[in-house]
Amino acid sequence: MKAQAPSAYPAWLLPSGFEDTLPARAEILETCRRGLLDLYAGWGYRQVIPPLVEHLESLLTGSAADLDLQTWKLVDQASGRLVGLRSDMTPQMARIDAQISADDETRRLCYAGTVLRARPDHLGGSRAPFQVGAELFGVAGPEADLEVLSLMVESLLHCRVGDLLLDLGHVGIAHALADAAGFHQDLRAELLRLLERKAWPDIRLWLDSKGCGTELMDDFATLLRAHGGLEVLERTQGQLGHHGAVRAALEQLLFIWTQLQQRYPQLQLQCDLAEVHGHQYHTGLLFSAYGPQQGAALASGGRYDGIGLAFGGSRPATGFSLDLKPILPPARAPGGVRTIWAPGGQGANLWQTITALRQQGQRVIQDFSAELAPADPSLVEEGYGSVLEKSGGKWHVRPLTSADITIEEDAE
Amino acid sequence: MKAQAPSAYPAWLLPSGFEDTLPARAEILETCRRGLLDLYAGWGYRQVIPPLVEHLESLLTGSAADLDLQTWKLVDQASGRLVGLRSDMTPQMARIDAQISADDETRRLCYAGTVLRARPDHLGGSRAPFQVGAELFGVAGPEADLEVLSLMVESLLHCRVGDLLLDLGHVGIAHALADAAGFHQDLRAELLRLLERKAWPDIRLWLDSKGCGTELMDDFATLLRAHGGLEVLERTQGQLGHHGAVRAALEQLLFIWTQLQQRYPQLQLQCDLAEVHGHQYHTGLLFSAYGPQQGAALASGGRYDGIGLAFGGSRPATGFSLDLKPILPPARAPGGVRTIWAPGGQGANLWQTITALRQQGQRVIQDFSAELAPADPSLVEEGYGSVLEKSGGKWHVRPLTSADITIEEDAE
Repeated sequence: MKAQAPSAYPAWLLPSGFEDTLPARAEILETCRRGLLDLYAGWGYRQVIPPLVEHLESLLTGSAADLDLQTWKLVDQASGRLVGLRSDMTPQMARIDAQISADDETRRLCYAGTVLRARPDHLGGSRAPFQVGAELFGVAGPEADLEVLSLMVESLLHCRVGDLLLDLGHVGIAHALADAAGFHQDLRAELLRLLERKAWPDIRLWLDSKGCGTELMDDFATLLRAHGGLEVLERTQGQLGHHGAVRAALEQLLFIWTQLQQRYPQLQLQCDLAEVHGHQYHTGLLFSAYGPQQGAALASGGRYDGIGLAFGGSRPATGFSLDLKPILPPARAPGGVRTIWAPGGQGANLWQTITALRQQGQRVIQDFSAELAPADPSLVEEGYGSVLEKSGGKWHVRPLTSADITIEEDAE
Repeated sequence: MKAQAPSAYPAWLLPSGFEDTLPARAEILETCRRGLLDLYAGWGYRQVIPPLVEHLESLLTGSAADLDLQTWKLVDQASGRLVGLRSDMTPQMARIDAQISADDETRRLCYAGTVLRARPDHLGGSRAPFQVGAELFGVAGPEADLEVLSLMVESLLHCRVGDLLLDLGHVGIAHALADAAGFHQDLRAELLRLLERKAWPDIRLWLDSKGCGTELMDDFATLLRAHGGLEVLERTQGQLGHHGAVRAALEQLLFIWTQLQQRYPQLQLQCDLAEVHGHQYHTGLLFSAYGPQQGAALASGGRYDGIGLAFGGSRPATGFSLDLKPILPPARAPGGVRTIWAPGGQGANLWQTITALRQQGQRVIQDFSAELAPADPSLVEEGYGSVLEKSGGKWHVRPLTSADITIEEDAE
């Protein structure tokens, strides 16, 4: 079979949510990618590269329905089994950690790669985010959450995202109230779905229909109102602190809040204690970072203890991830390396000269259409900084006149 | 739906041909990946990142049946159209070049990314090669083939592959004989499939059945025998040079051979003029590199003029690609950066000290389980080179005793 494009669809049209990343942007992405991996290495996070394709049941272990609907499924012709394209690398990290770590070992892993979505997160969104992240396994305390949260902030600062707003939450608070009300399994799942929509009238009706007492009803109402600054954390501690698990969760949040303020005074902090949306496998502290435009979260993460259980090891785990493409800084004016124009021709002498220049870190492009360099202005316009010329029987590099004017080569 | 692993298949089992790349190997892959992209940048090749998913007809344009059978197909739920996972990035480069280049423009592109195969190239092979390559568009002459071929050799040398054998061919020779015999379209495709298997008795029978004359039959026999060293090129020039297109192809091969010998005297060269296997969209010069073990080709490429036509631009094109995973050098003993052990705790002073060290390029890992460093030998065993300690009210880095012994952390 040789597929032919129906004339109604030009052959070069990409599926919606996919794009080519052309040179100018690809180079920024590569620079940021390297910078982030180097940053993580400096914190002791070691890179792993999980596969793009896994058996469906491994990809979806421990996660909720959202991830399932996002996952592109296909049949593996080698085995006849259903496989999926990864739509999130965090569960893959949990699997890898469970396979290679002993119970009490601390392990720091990081990753950078494309994830694929059967449908975009939002209308017109990407179906191929470039996911970068770091995960810390084996440490149960909030100091681990603080470390990954700090690394998330450093990642955004590295990509020159300014005016960051950090939103903190804790999935344990809603769970503690659900425990107090005796909601388990399906009832709890229903409650969390209602909380996601944050519509108090609906929640109140639902709680009423399940025979929830007045006092607990008030506690849920308090939870729904608990968003804002540090004072909200302190006030909620007074109002809901009689639930032991809520008190513990709020203490963790206060610890994180105080430490973050010390480490990054420029950071704007807020809490939203009823927030459970988009945190499918999380079990404790939650966090999301927003940029000045305040649309979708730029990066997010949290604690997800125990999801490695299906792979043989239940471990404390916390981490974050981000999509690198939307936060790439704009192209900088080309610095340091200026391209050297070299003539066509195959003389051994010319080849050796070019090779030596490249080994010194210079960029040399051989122009096979010319033995002599075109006029300086036209070369400068094409982004060249100097030419390789022969004089007195030797090759030498001559800087172009007015080489300080540069023009971006590739528009996207 | 929440998929559960059937008990017969452990959840951590990956589909055949897929693997996790764990830290020790991931770091080598990352180093080589960066090194190669930097190498290509030095030659003026600019990185592009094409999507993992494209409409099937774009992925398969201009290519032969092999690529079709290798391509994983799925239905895009957003459009209902068939899409494929890329199994080769070269046709994507041709599409991108056709979309962004003017007719007579020279364009150099490079790429590094995973390609996916519905079935492996060979039994037990990978279905997720890490493809790295470079393509030169807009230059029709053999000096362009020489450039990409040289860059392919440099790539393998960069990955420290020694004792290289380079196999050269030219698909134009078989085509010239097919022209002379008046074989077009389906007949030519049949002939090329027979040539792939290189079984002369079958080819002879087939040629006979198509009414091929004695003289041409002899020419085909000559072609089948034409493999070996430089003398083969020269002899074949005498035997088949009366076909104008064969003569031109052999002249290109002689030019490449001579230039390569000058540039890389250590390289072992051979030609195989009947070779057409695995070169699905190629139209001219072909080349493959083999390592000392002589199994599958480590890298290959060639000329593929005109495949961008379906995307609106028929352009001269030549390039190469390789799978980085099989040629990764072994892990080196960890050099330069030695890890610093730091105690747990959240003092602002400690945090500032750690931050300053990391900004200097040091790797610092905070051990949340300890306020005081464990005994030196156990830290050395874990790969640490020094500890952060407080004395006299200030933090300072103390090198570990016997820090010259290191042990590889992650076995795979």
